[in-house]
Amino acid sequence: MENIRFITMGELLLRLSPPNYEKIRTTDEFKVTYGGAEANVAAALSNLGVDASYFTVVPESSIGKAAIRYLRSNDVHCSPCIYAPEGRMGIYFLEEGFGVRSSKVTYDRKDSAFAKYDFSTVDFKEKLKGFTWLHLSGITPALSQSCRKLVSLALKAAKELKITVSFDCNFRSALWGWQEARDCITEYLPYVDVLFGIEPINLRDENGKDMKDGLSMNPTYKEQDRIFRELHKRYNFKAIGRHVRYVHSGSENSLKAFMWYNGETYESRTFRFNILDRVGGGDAFASGMIYAIMRNMPPDEIVNFAVASSVIKHTMHGDFNITDDEESIIKLMNQEYEIRR
Amino acid sequence: MENIRFITMGELLLRLSPPNYEKIRTTDEFKVTYGGAEANVAAALSNLGVDASYFTVVPESSIGKAAIRYLRSNDVHCSPCIYAPEGRMGIYFLEEGFGVRSSKVTYDRKDSAFAKYDFSTVDFKEKLKGFTWLHLSGITPALSQSCRKLVSLALKAAKELKITVSFDCNFRSALWGWQEARDCITEYLPYVDVLFGIEPINLRDENGKDMKDGLSMNPTYKEQDRIFRELHKRYNFKAIGRHVRYVHSGSENSLKAFMWYNGETYESRTFRFNILDRVGGGDAFASGMIYAIMRNMPPDEIVNFAVASSVIKHTMHGDFNITDDEESIIKLMNQEYEIRR
Amino acid sequence: MENIRFITMGELLLRLSPPNYEKIRTTDEFKVTYGGAEANVAAALSNLGVDASYFTVVPESSIGKAAIRYLRSNDVHCSPCIYAPEGRMGIYFLEEGFGVRSSKVTYDRKDSAFAKYDFSTVDFKEKLKGFTWLHLSGITPALSQSCRKLVSLALKAAKELKITVSFDCNFRSALWGWQEARDCITEYLPYVDVLFGIEPINLRDENGKDMKDGLSMNPTYKEQDRIFRELHKRYNFKAIGRHVRYVHSGSENSLKAFMWYNGETYESRTFRFNILDRVGGGDAFASGMIYAIMRNMPPDEIVNFAVASSVIKHTMHGDFNITDDEESIIKLMNQEYEIRR
Amino acid sequence: MENIRFITMGELLLRLSPPNYEKIRTTDEFKVTYGGAEANVAAALSNLGVDASYFTVVPESSIGKAAIRYLRSNDVHCSPCIYAPEGRMGIYFLEEGFGVRSSKVTYDRKDSAFAKYDFSTVDFKEKLKGFTWLHLSGITPALSQSCRKLVSLALKAAKELKITVSFDCNFRSALWGWQEARDCITEYLPYVDVLFGIEPINLRDENGKDMKDGLSMNPTYKEQDRIFRELHKRYNFKAIGRHVRYVHSGSENSLKAFMWYNGETYESRTFRFNILDRVGGGDAFASGMIYAIMRNMPPDEIVNFAVASSVIKHTMHGDFNITDDEESIIKLMNQEYEIRR
Amino acid sequence: MENIRFITMGELLLRLSPPNYEKIRTTDEFKVTYGGAEANVAAALSNLGVDASYFTVVPESSIGKAAIRYLRSNDVHCSPCIYAPEGRMGIYFLEEGFGVRSSKVTYDRKDSAFAKYDFSTVDFKEKLKGFTWLHLSGITPALSQSCRKLVSLALKAAKELKITVSFDCNFRSALWGWQEARDCITEYLPYVDVLFGIEPINLRDENGKDMKDGLSMNPTYKEQDRIFRELHKRYNFKAIGRHVRYVHSGSENSLKAFMWYNGETYESRTFRFNILDRVGGGDAFASGMIYAIMRNMPPDEIVNFAVASSVIKHTMHGDFNITDDEESIIKLMNQEYEIRR
Amino acid sequence: MENIRFITMGELLLRLSPPNYEKIRTTDEFKVTYGGAEANVAAALSNLGVDASYFTVVPESSIGKAAIRYLRSNDVHCSPCIYAPEGRMGIYFLEEGFGVRSSKVTYDRKDSAFAKYDFSTVDFKEKLKGFTWLHLSGITPALSQSCRKLVSLALKAAKELKITVSFDCNFRSALWGWQEARDCITEYLPYVDVLFGIEPINLRDENGKDMKDGLSMNPTYKEQDRIFRELHKRYNFKAIGRHVRYVHSGSENSLKAFMWYNGETYESRTFRFNILDRVGGGDAFASGMIYAIMRNMPPDEIVNFAVASSVIKHTMHGDFNITDDEESIIKLMNQEYEIRR
Repeated sequence: MENIRFITMGELLLRLSPPNYEKIRTTDEFKVTYGGAEANVAAALSNLGVDASYFTVVPESSIGKAAIRYLRSNDVHCSPCIYAPEGRMGIYFLEEGFGVRSSKVTYDRKDSAFAKYDFSTVDFKEKLKGFTWLHLSGITPALSQSCRKLVSLALKAAKELKITVSFDCNFRSALWGWQEARDCITEYLPYVDVLFGIEPINLRDENGKDMKDGLSMNPTYKEQDRIFRELHKRYNFKAIGRHVRYVHSGSENSLKAFMWYNGETYESRTFRFNILDRVGGGDAFASGMIYAIMRNMPPDEIVNFAVASSVIKHTMHGDFNITDDEESIIKLMNQEYEIRR
Repeated sequence: MENIRFITMGELLLRLSPPNYEKIRTTDEFKVTYGGAEANVAAALSNLGVDASYFTVVPESSIGKAAIRYLRSNDVHCSPCIYAPEGRMGIYFLEEGFGVRSSKVTYDRKDSAFAKYDFSTVDFKEKLKGFTWLHLSGITPALSQSCRKLVSLALKAAKELKITVSFDCNFRSALWGWQEARDCITEYLPYVDVLFGIEPINLRDENGKDMKDGLSMNPTYKEQDRIFRELHKRYNFKAIGRHVRYVHSGSENSLKAFMWYNGETYESRTFRFNILDRVGGGDAFASGMIYAIMRNMPPDEIVNFAVASSVIKHTMHGDFNITDDEESIIKLMNQEYEIRR
Repeated sequence: MENIRFITMGELLLRLSPPNYEKIRTTDEFKVTYGGAEANVAAALSNLGVDASYFTVVPESSIGKAAIRYLRSNDVHCSPCIYAPEGRMGIYFLEEGFGVRSSKVTYDRKDSAFAKYDFSTVDFKEKLKGFTWLHLSGITPALSQSCRKLVSLALKAAKELKITVSFDCNFRSALWGWQEARDCITEYLPYVDVLFGIEPINLRDENGKDMKDGLSMNPTYKEQDRIFRELHKRYNFKAIGRHVRYVHSGSENSLKAFMWYNGETYESRTFRFNILDRVGGGDAFASGMIYAIMRNMPPDEIVNFAVASSVIKHTMHGDFNITDDEESIIKLMNQEYEIRR
Repeated sequence: MENIRFITMGELLLRLSPPNYEKIRTTDEFKVTYGGAEANVAAALSNLGVDASYFTVVPESSIGKAAIRYLRSNDVHCSPCIYAPEGRMGIYFLEEGFGVRSSKVTYDRKDSAFAKYDFSTVDFKEKLKGFTWLHLSGITPALSQSCRKLVSLALKAAKELKITVSFDCNFRSALWGWQEARDCITEYLPYVDVLFGIEPINLRDENGKDMKDGLSMNPTYKEQDRIFRELHKRYNFKAIGRHVRYVHSGSENSLKAFMWYNGETYESRTFRFNILDRVGGGDAFASGMIYAIMRNMPPDEIVNFAVASSVIKHTMHGDFNITDDEESIIKLMNQEYEIRR
Repeated sequence: MENIRFITMGELLLRLSPPNYEKIRTTDEFKVTYGGAEANVAAALSNLGVDASYFTVVPESSIGKAAIRYLRSNDVHCSPCIYAPEGRMGIYFLEEGFGVRSSKVTYDRKDSAFAKYDFSTVDFKEKLKGFTWLHLSGITPALSQSCRKLVSLALKAAKELKITVSFDCNFRSALWGWQEARDCITEYLPYVDVLFGIEPINLRDENGKDMKDGLSMNPTYKEQDRIFRELHKRYNFKAIGRHVRYVHSGSENSLKAFMWYNGETYESRTFRFNILDRVGGGDAFASGMIYAIMRNMPPDEIVNFAVASSVIKHTMHGDFNITDDEESIIKLMNQEYEIRR
Repeated sequence: MENIRFITMGELLLRLSPPNYEKIRTTDEFKVTYGGAEANVAAALSNLGVDASYFTVVPESSIGKAAIRYLRSNDVHCSPCIYAPEGRMGIYFLEEGFGVRSSKVTYDRKDSAFAKYDFSTVDFKEKLKGFTWLHLSGITPALSQSCRKLVSLALKAAKELKITVSFDCNFRSALWGWQEARDCITEYLPYVDVLFGIEPINLRDENGKDMKDGLSMNPTYKEQDRIFRELHKRYNFKAIGRHVRYVHSGSENSLKAFMWYNGETYESRTFRFNILDRVGGGDAFASGMIYAIMRNMPPDEIVNFAVASSVIKHTMHGDFNITDDEESIIKLMNQEYEIRR
């Protein structure tokens, strides 16, 4: 791990959620945290001891500074960040569900300082110098044309600098359309080494039909293996991770994952668990898998560590998996739950 | 729904409960809400968009005004309400249980401004003018002789004005005896169109034995149907609703319901769910069924909507079901629990 | 007061402020209230028993509905309000100061549903029918061109309907420039009966110089009287109110006021007081003066009641003066502070 | 202090107050404490190390038990207390004022278990055996005829047992009338050794006019001395204490006191101070004076210690002065305010 | 129960835990309670009405006094306690787990006033005079040599005074080694009447092998019976209790127990339950069994009452089982969970 | 400021204080922050934009990590810090006073990981490489012999590296004696460039009498100047700062300061202000003066900026002055308190 220097880039959001399962319409208080798909990955890695940096743009205001403080407290290096004189902080309101009542996210992220920043003025080769791993997500290109510029410039610079690139597809239907997303993200794939999620991506067979279109949300090993192989054939990914969620209720889910790794497909155990905070579960899967790859764990352990990382995230408030020891995650894999004293 | 104007009448209580499952003996804080069987129905309907009004009596004090504020925030019209110079606000202390520890209600509602008010001075025909639906409950006659006057005057006025009348039997053993309640409520039945609960009611066979006395708490469809038919024969109800609760623990229950509707008995699905706040579950069943009838849903949907309304109430703090969209309740009927974003 | 029906129009903002004098950069919690210059006036009046209505536009979301709930709980009639499918809720972040540390407001109100609404589609004569008093403020025209349309359409409709019009100048430098504001607001003056504040208004002498430009922030009676007379000469105002604030520290201020009323200038007593929440102090002055005029108090009492209304507001959390009895305000005028039991 | 055993008797109330200077009408939370004039004295003494017991009646419920727990945590012996199967816990709602906004107490104490208890069934000689000091107050006889029985039985038993008796006049206009109170309390005076307050008491001159009637709320030493002498002539009190309050605002008061002690009148220094919680200030004066007498302080110190006790109470939440060291109170007398570390 | 006077001796700890399942690393608040194996037993018994006393040593500081207040509020007599001028209050930090995330205890209890106190200066025969039951635990001898002195002196004094002695083995690996503990505790057994737990104890067969070493964590009735008989043969215990825990997750456990009583082995029902607060579960088992023995319940009920006591503890915050009525515990044994009103 | 790199070394404490002016004996909650004389200076500087680093030793536990997180969130570089396997986190309990009731600090800092660490194993020349300013305080040598080693090694290394050294005398009577402190700290003075406080230091005249011994706590300019000159003569300080506090009450103080700078004595204005949190006021004075020196302000401004820094700290919770803009502090110097919006 000594020589690893990780960086990620994306939008940071102010998250406002009523305490104690209250509803937004009746609350007189919001709990304040900050998050974003990429920030979540950076924080999870730094808490586990990885040297992690973050690039974003926040407004030059107390809100923007508060957001950066939050990341800094997690030991994420924020010196690459830009304080913009224009634009606002993107916000999302989260009404946390309970049992049969689902959680609800309301976005108020339009015209954020990040989305409006002119990234063509940034020298990404300079920004990425010295780093060994770059992580991006499919949320960024959905935000604005300038943000798409960010992604393509960063990918190209990473390629030149021979930096490992991971990419989490992370489709958000509130931000853009399915086909627009597919077309856009597919163009990024040649630059990607480690892929999370298999949608929205074009994977057309000779008849122009997407090979994934019939795929079940809960595929068999065989079905998933076939898709992984096809993806690998075209883009030569080092690894692909895809988790599968079963929603028993808003408070209880199960998770498992499939992983393509060095030419083979692996399947994790299935974990059933109670949920304290659902947001960031997918990012914790990604960060867990990245961490396990960085640590050179055997493939079996990588995929199970990734799922356990996601599962333990669901027991913490906020978007971040702030577990600071491998041991806790590994204990979870062994289902040891007794109080430690 | 355009022409519907709903009104209900009953006592409003100040509810004091320790936060976070603490016990009353050790708490240094009470969460404050307000509720009452009838107010709960009014608030649920107004949150779903029904024009709903409420008649009660509160003391002319900050506590009384706070209670009315609470209803007003739910868009319940409170102009019929009376601020009385005498009497106190009824209170109930609620110790919320957790898992195997049951919730506990302690009443301190004696001599309330409502119970002591002289309702013979009220012109109920005037009060009810322009409304299309009146809802009352079996708690009111249990409070005082004057409150019984309220019920009988209101029922008679409603009859004259051809207002639809619903009545929730709602027996409270802390307030009166079983047989006294049976005799009293039975007299109201000729005025009732939609009945909730089938006890405490006299339903004597030719031998003077109550036909319901052997009835299981968890009857078969056939058993329930027989009782419904018998009730209908005597009182010609448009609808009867009765929910059945299975108490797995203080934190987990199941609910289903039987409903008589236009000459036939219907049975809902059974829902199993976790409980955040148990109080008001029965009132949410009543309001859900009233709403679905107002909306002219098919009978199958009415009974399931009513149960789902009750179930979703259990996931909210306070006595009220404050769901403000049909869609959430209908999603629950379809068991869709995934986060919405 | 029987025949008075008050309405006001303006933007409603979500207010987020850290509890307990914390700073935004370090807080993990925001207290949630809602406010806006016009809403503050409506709520103060309805709490004192005036029939008060409010017209605004909020987004069709839980946030928008929460804002309306908040007003409804104060018995403000919100049926004129519009839920817009587009646009966001304007927000302001308030960092409450303590002692020598000043309060700080950060606006995030751009592109609100209100600012973006096309008010040319609204029939203001219809909206205003039946009302006897309309209140507007100088914040609205600063928000957007459409909002200026709102103001001019509403003023014209009010004129036709012979509704009394009050207008609070309320300059906000964060929203527009001083001269633009002066020119814009001056055009509204012919429609105004009761004016709050004397800036930003053009009051040019024959040389084109504004007669107010040399005026002290703390004028003598004579200086103020001269300006009032000049204003009255041109616009024939029924009343003008202007409060003067002395800032001893962020936690301690003094207030007094000058008032023009039926051809004479009055000066109030000076009140020195501690501050719990500074926001809405000016609106409480306006609502106090409107209320006292509606109640036909003698001029001496009107001006003192207005200042006392403002002073008591400073002792309450939130933007609103929620005092619900004249008596409290009148006691304050008499400086009776002993506990009442 | 070794041989001192103190007991007091009176009603205990549940106190409910919104946190953080909120108003009752808008709060969703009440802070919970317990208090009562006599309980406040018991708790203050036990916190200073005096062996203190308390006799009251509470309902046999979680609320009643919570009240007793609260006293027990202050090391007040509660074994004399009675849990009654009937009656409720008296409640008072306290809206704490801020600055120019006064605090407001709303009582809901009617029909309490204490007021309704039949004290003629209690053997007060048995109850008082072994105690050396009994404290009563003028609130008890105002509650019910049975409570007057309590006072007269307890006074007589104390006389027989040669127990020192202190009595705090403590007039509450919400509970009874001024003349009824005067007549009632005057009858108790022959049994009293230490008196707090000089009203409501009949102190008629030969013309039947009350000699105190012209007395200023802020008398001169000479005026006060004349009244003390007159009282002493008739009832031979060992000590009389009377504090004088100046209300600068709801948040800032001054206090001083006059004391008759062994044939002479003493006057304390005047303390000006900020207020965190105003309730119980008078009881803290009484307990401070009782404590100083028990400790045989010189008269000068007794009267200043009593005022300082009251002053320090105003800086603590709840009805009790929970200071547990003489030193803090003595430091306050010396106006040493620097942080201690 | 009339003649029973219970006393226990041990260390009291300040417990600091983040609210609402937060993690220590990110919390800005600790909930404060106090606990300790022996204090937990004393508080559980006094809440059920047993006359219970406690002996400990705390520092003479606000923290030490706060700890004693906490016990006093539970009606535990604390007059035997010593305020030491030296030493600190032991602390434990508790991070409460959620679901698959385990709770974590961090001790900071070194050099506590209790561990450092010289107990050879205490006259234990004096301390124990008048008591009928003494309870000790295996935590005390693990703290310091002086604490071992406490245990052996107390046991000997109890023997002389013919006081019933119960002892809970309570091994804490953070405090001492397994074999050291076994040797130490085994020496206490001849003084013990009622034993909780069967480890760490030496129970060597003729070959010097411990007969318990092969025993399953979840033994059959037969296996457990054999061990009990062996223990009884050597030490003639009146009763032995041992509960068995199944950890389904950090939030859900099952409990059952085996009990040796008057020459026979009993096995309880198994209870499955959700957990609000896990700490003190074992002490609640011990106190439940002691209470049931004191009440002379039949053996079947004793063992089930003990387990139900432990189970209900898991639904309360803090270390103590503060249930104040047998009825609740007995209802739990009957699995009656419905709200009581 | 570009080339400035600041470092400080000292103990970090966990601070536990009841919220809302509650007392430790009755609180059920502690607010958690972290502080220490040196950390406070580092955080204040980094918040103002200075590159600031910190060296301390914390235990390798969640508490230790939480402490470091807290500093990191303030952008203090913590990479020099050591996580020790042994020792605990020092704690201080703070009971915040109100008005006439003083704040009270209770230390529980013995045997901390910092105090017990063997600093002779640290290479301070290595640690200090690249830094331009080192700050130490008189608390460190009071903690342990090893901590004295830290100070002397660091001072010597700084000298060799030509780093500017500031030293805050900061006497704590709870930690060591006055004369021991004087002797110890006097030995450090030859290494110091900027001195805060003038006690405890030996400044003997030819008769061996300390020249400061007669000095008033509130000296005249002339008196202070004489002492500064004497100190300068012996140690050639670049600057000496000494603030003077007037304690009007626990909630209201005044502050001013004297400063020696480049051969002359300056005196600041006097500021009177209300106190939210008193702790860290002295450290904010030191950091303010260091910052102003780094910024090369004129001497008049340096001394006033230092006092204003201290004053503004008193309006924030926690030990740190977290002001992040010079402007706020400069506004305070100009007494501009109006809300900014």
